[in-house]
Amino acid sequence: MFDPNELMRLAIDVCREGIAAGQTPFGCAIAIGDKVVARSHNSVYRTGDITAHAEINAIRTACQVVDDFFLKGAVVATTCEPCPMCMAALHWARVDTVYYGTSIADAKSSGFNELRLSAARLLSLGGSSVQLVGDILVDDCRELFNLWQASSERPPY
Amino acid sequence: MFDPNELMRLAIDVCREGIAAGQTPFGCAIAIGDKVVARSHNSVYRTGDITAHAEINAIRTACQVVDDFFLKGAVVATTCEPCPMCMAALHWARVDTVYYGTSIADAKSSGFNELRLSAARLLSLGGSSVQLVGDILVDDCRELFNLWQASSERPPY
Repeated sequence: MFDPNELMRLAIDVCREGIAAGQTPFGCAIAIGDKVVARSHNSVYRTGDITAHAEINAIRTACQVVDDFFLKGAVVATTCEPCPMCMAALHWARVDTVYYGTSIADAKSSGFNELRLSAARLLSLGGSSVQLVGDILVDDCRELFNLWQASSERPPY
Repeated sequence: MFDPNELMRLAIDVCREGIAAGQTPFGCAIAIGDKVVARSHNSVYRTGDITAHAEINAIRTACQVVDDFFLKGAVVATTCEPCPMCMAALHWARVDTVYYGTSIADAKSSGFNELRLSAARLLSLGGSSVQLVGDILVDDCRELFNLWQASSERPPY
């Protein structure tokens, strides 16, 4: 299995690529076994698709790569705690474990219109078996918001 | 504004098209003002994309049609209460009102791996301003599950 920190480094790298391309500061990487099957950043601004969060993009790519709409055994690293849309998508995809860096509260502080519902609480209330671990490379992940705010003049959504 | 029952009829019609094409029994229609901007059924089986729920598909289409990642003023009719993924996506899209027919509990009874969290509770816990109204043409919407179970041999997910 991929080392969580190593996978998070890939998520951070793709997040930085997104920021450099004018996108918002969220990155995600998905591995199954020792293979990385998807790396994506948020692309809402580029695509005009409000659902194009980093995790949704990565799930969609991973489904095509493995040719299955279930991603069993998948390990996910995402720079920010998944919003309810993304956390529920990861539940539907039946991934094993989700590692995240910074929190929904940090994203909300940066101006994003987040629902105030943590990923852990969504899983608990919903009765999901997806495992969730936060605070992975959290300082590096939090720094991505600063990088984005310094580089972009696009209004937050 | 579109009459909710009229919009739900469109969602039911596209759901039936999906069932006839071997897809799962969920349909969604979105209107802005007096114009229908999207009608979609679930297409997870066809696309292999686990995120391709009816509402996500309809949101993605609507964003392209109106050329905006916010769907302000949008009214949505969906044959089944939105799952947390779809409800949160509708929040991100800033739609006005979501009308739904049957419930997440009905979908769960039909074998779908639903999180046990109602759309109303997600909105309440999350602090969303999206309006939500259930039980629209509920008998017709519930009948879609029976139609699907009679017509499909695919396992539920």
